Amino acid sequence: MLLIDGERMYPNIQAYDRGAMFSPDGRLFQVDYARENVRKGATAMGIVVDTGVALIAHKNIMEPLAVSSTVQKIFRIDSFIGVAYSGMISDGMHLIQVLRNKAQSHRMIYNETESVEMLTKEISEEMQVATQYGGVRPYAVSLLVAGIDNSPKLFEIDPSAAYLGYKAEAIGAGKKTAEEMLIKSYKESMSIDDAINLGVSIIKKVQEGKLAENNIDISTVTKNAGFVAYTPEQIAKYV
Amino acid sequence: MLLIDGERMYPNIQAYDRGAMFSPDGRLFQVDYARENVRKGATAMGIVVDTGVALIAHKNIMEPLAVSSTVQKIFRIDSFIGVAYSGMISDGMHLIQVLRNKAQSHRMIYNETESVEMLTKEISEEMQVATQYGGVRPYAVSLLVAGIDNSPKLFEIDPSAAYLGYKAEAIGAGKKTAEEMLIKSYKESMSIDDAINLGVSIIKKVQEGKLAENNIDISTVTKNAGFVAYTPEQIAKYV
Amino acid sequence: MLLIDGERMYPNIQAYDRGAMFSPDGRLFQVDYARENVRKGATAMGIVVDTGVALIAHKNIMEPLAVSSTVQKIFRIDSFIGVAYSGMISDGMHLIQVLRNKAQSHRMIYNETESVEMLTKEISEEMQVATQYGGVRPYAVSLLVAGIDNSPKLFEIDPSAAYLGYKAEAIGAGKKTAEEMLIKSYKESMSIDDAINLGVSIIKKVQEGKLAENNIDISTVTKNAGFVAYTPEQIAKYV
Amino acid sequence: MLLIDGERMYPNIQAYDRGAMFSPDGRLFQVDYARENVRKGATAMGIVVDTGVALIAHKNIMEPLAVSSTVQKIFRIDSFIGVAYSGMISDGMHLIQVLRNKAQSHRMIYNETESVEMLTKEISEEMQVATQYGGVRPYAVSLLVAGIDNSPKLFEIDPSAAYLGYKAEAIGAGKKTAEEMLIKSYKESMSIDDAINLGVSIIKKVQEGKLAENNIDISTVTKNAGFVAYTPEQIAKYV
Amino acid sequence: MLLIDGERMYPNIQAYDRGAMFSPDGRLFQVDYARENVRKGATAMGIVVDTGVALIAHKNIMEPLAVSSTVQKIFRIDSFIGVAYSGMISDGMHLIQVLRNKAQSHRMIYNETESVEMLTKEISEEMQVATQYGGVRPYAVSLLVAGIDNSPKLFEIDPSAAYLGYKAEAIGAGKKTAEEMLIKSYKESMSIDDAINLGVSIIKKVQEGKLAENNIDISTVTKNAGFVAYTPEQIAKYV
Amino acid sequence: MLLIDGERMYPNIQAYDRGAMFSPDGRLFQVDYARENVRKGATAMGIVVDTGVALIAHKNIMEPLAVSSTVQKIFRIDSFIGVAYSGMISDGMHLIQVLRNKAQSHRMIYNETESVEMLTKEISEEMQVATQYGGVRPYAVSLLVAGIDNSPKLFEIDPSAAYLGYKAEAIGAGKKTAEEMLIKSYKESMSIDDAINLGVSIIKKVQEGKLAENNIDISTVTKNAGFVAYTPEQIAKYV
Amino acid sequence: MLLIDGERMYPNIQAYDRGAMFSPDGRLFQVDYARENVRKGATAMGIVVDTGVALIAHKNIMEPLAVSSTVQKIFRIDSFIGVAYSGMISDGMHLIQVLRNKAQSHRMIYNETESVEMLTKEISEEMQVATQYGGVRPYAVSLLVAGIDNSPKLFEIDPSAAYLGYKAEAIGAGKKTAEEMLIKSYKESMSIDDAINLGVSIIKKVQEGKLAENNIDISTVTKNAGFVAYTPEQIAKYV
Repeated sequence: MLLIDGERMYPNIQAYDRGAMFSPDGRLFQVDYARENVRKGATAMGIVVDTGVALIAHKNIMEPLAVSSTVQKIFRIDSFIGVAYSGMISDGMHLIQVLRNKAQSHRMIYNETESVEMLTKEISEEMQVATQYGGVRPYAVSLLVAGIDNSPKLFEIDPSAAYLGYKAEAIGAGKKTAEEMLIKSYKESMSIDDAINLGVSIIKKVQEGKLAENNIDISTVTKNAGFVAYTPEQIAKYV
Repeated sequence: MLLIDGERMYPNIQAYDRGAMFSPDGRLFQVDYARENVRKGATAMGIVVDTGVALIAHKNIMEPLAVSSTVQKIFRIDSFIGVAYSGMISDGMHLIQVLRNKAQSHRMIYNETESVEMLTKEISEEMQVATQYGGVRPYAVSLLVAGIDNSPKLFEIDPSAAYLGYKAEAIGAGKKTAEEMLIKSYKESMSIDDAINLGVSIIKKVQEGKLAENNIDISTVTKNAGFVAYTPEQIAKYV
Repeated sequence: MLLIDGERMYPNIQAYDRGAMFSPDGRLFQVDYARENVRKGATAMGIVVDTGVALIAHKNIMEPLAVSSTVQKIFRIDSFIGVAYSGMISDGMHLIQVLRNKAQSHRMIYNETESVEMLTKEISEEMQVATQYGGVRPYAVSLLVAGIDNSPKLFEIDPSAAYLGYKAEAIGAGKKTAEEMLIKSYKESMSIDDAINLGVSIIKKVQEGKLAENNIDISTVTKNAGFVAYTPEQIAKYV
Repeated sequence: MLLIDGERMYPNIQAYDRGAMFSPDGRLFQVDYARENVRKGATAMGIVVDTGVALIAHKNIMEPLAVSSTVQKIFRIDSFIGVAYSGMISDGMHLIQVLRNKAQSHRMIYNETESVEMLTKEISEEMQVATQYGGVRPYAVSLLVAGIDNSPKLFEIDPSAAYLGYKAEAIGAGKKTAEEMLIKSYKESMSIDDAINLGVSIIKKVQEGKLAENNIDISTVTKNAGFVAYTPEQIAKYV
Repeated sequence: MLLIDGERMYPNIQAYDRGAMFSPDGRLFQVDYARENVRKGATAMGIVVDTGVALIAHKNIMEPLAVSSTVQKIFRIDSFIGVAYSGMISDGMHLIQVLRNKAQSHRMIYNETESVEMLTKEISEEMQVATQYGGVRPYAVSLLVAGIDNSPKLFEIDPSAAYLGYKAEAIGAGKKTAEEMLIKSYKESMSIDDAINLGVSIIKKVQEGKLAENNIDISTVTKNAGFVAYTPEQIAKYV
Repeated sequence: MLLIDGERMYPNIQAYDRGAMFSPDGRLFQVDYARENVRKGATAMGIVVDTGVALIAHKNIMEPLAVSSTVQKIFRIDSFIGVAYSGMISDGMHLIQVLRNKAQSHRMIYNETESVEMLTKEISEEMQVATQYGGVRPYAVSLLVAGIDNSPKLFEIDPSAAYLGYKAEAIGAGKKTAEEMLIKSYKESMSIDDAINLGVSIIKKVQEGKLAENNIDISTVTKNAGFVAYTPEQIAKYV
Repeated sequence: MLLIDGERMYPNIQAYDRGAMFSPDGRLFQVDYARENVRKGATAMGIVVDTGVALIAHKNIMEPLAVSSTVQKIFRIDSFIGVAYSGMISDGMHLIQVLRNKAQSHRMIYNETESVEMLTKEISEEMQVATQYGGVRPYAVSLLVAGIDNSPKLFEIDPSAAYLGYKAEAIGAGKKTAEEMLIKSYKESMSIDDAINLGVSIIKKVQEGKLAENNIDISTVTKNAGFVAYTPEQIAKYV
């Protein structure tokens, strides 16, 4: 965090953390602060295996009367593409909507599912603008774009709009712990079921407690079935 | 509240509570401050039961010559959707108008009532913009969107534009107390009448005093009757 | 007033009273300051009785050579709607013009007088924008919209753009005193003449002095005659 | 003036005298400062009598080689309307041009001279905008709009865009003295010649010195002759 | 100059010299500062005589290799109108271009030379905008518009966009000295040659040194010849 | 770095490092700070030889589960043009997209590959705007544009939008070291293979460690084959 | 430089060096600072002789692997017009492009080469805007526009957008020294070859060292040949 030296250091830092402006060492503080927001978001993961991609996301429902199914962390974008997000809810929901519109446009013009990387690039262009122009703040959201075009793919986009492909990657509060566990246990040859089990066990570890089927969101994109959102009943089998 | 450490702490906080800008810990202070406005608004509640949704709202009329019927806290949006709000009156009235226009558009294009979640998402998009762009402040309003599509639904949207589904939820000054009472007493299998009685008893508790029929707004959305705004005579029976 | 603690307190307050921005406790200071302007305006009143609505407004003419008839505080908007205002003159005149245009549009499209509440809501939308966007200040005006649609109606709109219906209500410098007197003496069954007499006596009390016929503006909206602006001769009979 | 308490008081005042923003007591300081500019302008007067209106304005020509006839303080707007201004020259000239265009438009559309009050209201709308929006300063000008529609009329508009009708009124540096003299000597039954003589004597008093015919501007609007700008020869008879 | 009280006074002054904003005493500091720029410009003069107007301008060429003929201080606008400027070169050149376009437009539409005062008023409107709106600075230029319509005319416009007619007037660094000499020696009955000689002698006095034919610009507008720019050979005769 | 004198020096520097504004010594600090960002980017190089141009870029993949092939530092723009970038990822990806669009437009209009310099100039125009206007920050990216038109060409563009042709040039963290090694070893007569070997050896030196085939990006533009992106297998032969 | 009095003086100066704003003494500091940038640019010169104009510019290539021919300081604008610039590279390249477009437009509309002064005036208009409006900085570039219309011409434009014609003029770091040498040695009757030799000798003097043919740019505009850019071989003969 930026406040290490406390009050005295603060006035100088302030000078560069407004709007679309570089600090003397070339950083965009507003982007860093947006990342800080994501760092407090719910943990989500994507795991690529030979037959597809699994997305597993924690749903941090603390209110007993909340309807679990409305806390959605994973979204169908197209028949072979799904997205998980972590960070500010309304920013996430907005970007999901943009992603769906872009995927739909592509399908209508070209009559095909857009490649996972192309869709990722398009949403990155949208997010880059919010880091370069004044009068708008960056998006406080990281995204995991999972899908299959010629093979299973997984991309992470962060608030700076940078994106990168992964075999397995986590976002949100448990990112660091999750990544260490993924590095230890990930095998591309796993079955999609093993990938889900790995993801669920990591969420359990990160949350230091029990998970119910309504505290977790699971979706897969597989060659046979395309994007599938798991029902609570299906999820219960993994918890 | 933010002023815990008083004057000395203030100059630093100020640095991040202007416009659409993140603080070093990734918060949007203007959104937090808008929530503070809602926290002083009149208490309102939504309760989902098997046969529909009840909306109960306190009408804090302190002026003897005010016309109770013009203090409206619950609004018909479409034949099967109603909305309660708490917070800044003119912001609330504006969003009610936007909701009605969106519902009407949908009906004209698709000849059907929009799903409750889709309508909620549309107003959330409108509110998200006011949290991301400079030159405009967030809406100081929380909304309870209640309706029936394939089943009874209730959503809460707050000034950050985040929304979530609930079985029962409260907004405004009495939110905390009301939620505790709802958790204790809520049963989905209640009749719609019991739901209203529960809501009215909670408002009474929150207000620590007597309620007259013109200090409360009640509406229901039921499968048989759609959206119904209760008359003072009907309300009197519950008070 | 905000300056209670004097100079030392001031720097902090300043931080939140610019443009469209919330203070940490969720207030819009520019709206509060606009209200302060209205609090110095001429006193005006609306009184609803069974047969119509009376508007009575003080005209504070201190210059002997000013032409009393040009100091207008009550305006005809449509055949069954009149409006009184208090606050900044040019803001008031502008909103009167907007109200007239809106009423005229409605009449041209629907061939009917707009309902009093709908017209009130339309001008409220106009005023809400001035509280939410940067680069524009709120209107420093309170309005009393009086009229008859299916029954006599009276609405007050304040600089926050909030509106509420009343049986009797006052705005401007004498608001508090006038409201206390109205609560004591108001009866809906009064004749319109009694309502005028009540209003004039309140203005006299507030102004602590004599009133001439050219220091007061009186208009009524009645079922039989619609909007009628009283002539100085007619007013003289009440003073 | 605002600087009564000198330097220490200043920092606080500054906080509210920028752009279109209210001070805590509901004032618009930029409008007050624009009035201060007008308070240093040349004195001008309008006097309404039974047969018409006289406009008399001081022309403060201190440069011997300036051409008196180009220092114009009174302008013909239409055949029965004239305007005098005091304050910032380029602002005044701009508003005169706007007034002429508006009067011309009205004449072209309706084939009649616009009423004096309607024209006053139109220029007031133009000036009100400059008090409400950021990025533009108020006009530093007061106007006297004189004319005849069904009877002789005189309106004053000040930098706040407020306007009021008068039997006789003065603007500019000598406003206060002139108004006191007008109150003492004004009679509506005066001849137009007596009105001019009164006006000239007031200018003499205000200027504490001799006036030549080229130090004064005189125009009248009368029922018989409409707007007439007096020639230096005609003016010489009154000085 | 504004810095009389030095550093301590400065912070207060600064508060009002930004953009289009009045100081508490109703001044526009940015306009005053633009005038200060003009006060350092080359001296120029216009002298009206019975048969026309002479424009005489100093060309302060300190670089031996500069091409005197490209240092133009007087410009032909139309066949009977010329303009001299003093102040910021690029601002001056821009306004000359605007003047030419306006004169050309007028000629194309009405097939006549525009009146000198009308053209002056048009450029004043252009300059007024730069004193009222934020995001643009005033023009740092004074203009002398000379021409003949029904008689010879001379107008001065300064950075505030105010204009005034003169028999003889000077702008730029030598303004004060030149005006004193003009007052002493000016006679309207002079020949145009005498006017030029008077102007040249004033420039010599102001510059305290010798003038060569390439240090001075001379043009005349006369009834017989219209606008004429003198050649270096013609100028040499006056130096 | 700018902070040499620490806190005391800072307030002055701050005064000039906002938006599009020069410091007293004519620098644009925001451009300097954007360069600082590039100075932390991955090292990339371009080497021109007689038969073509080689681009060699380091791919700094520290996460074991990242997919190397998605960390792309070199991009095909057209059949005879490739580009490498260093700096902020989303800025780089955006400019790559702009370059591709411009190249495609040119091809569609003129049916030819654009010249390398013309394409460089076009992207420079895009980047220049971001250094001159407020409300937008400069691009934090340096580009190496490599291609063949009539001969092999290499251009570097930096965040100031300045560009220059080179025989061999490096960008990013290892720029300085790489340039020294290039100066020592570069020969235009090298084979394209030797150029690649030189580039890979420099990256190894800069990174002070071993390189695997998935830590490096290699592409060439040659007269025979046009733009060719090397496969990991091909790259492995050089590492 | 502006920092003479060091830190204490600085805060006051800062008050006036932002955006398009005059200082109390009528200066535009941002223009002065842009000039400071040019003062560090490469030296360039233009020399007018009877038969044409020679442009000689230093190319400060410190990197051994830079391609000299891409460091262009002199550009062909049209068949009889060339331009040299000094200052910020991307600003210069942008203005060169604007100049070419303007010249091309003129040629297409009028089927002739534009006059050198008219083209200079057009680019000056473009540059003037950047000194008057907020949200954009001045161009940090001086230009030498050389060409032949009815005779050989040379104009200098500086960051203030002011322009002036010269027989011989220099811009950039060596401006002062070069001007002194030009004054001493310039003769209009020189041959174009002597002009080039003079220019090259001046660059040598300014740079205090040896020049190679690739450290200098030479172009001429002559009556016979129009604009000619010299090849390195041709340049070698003068070095």
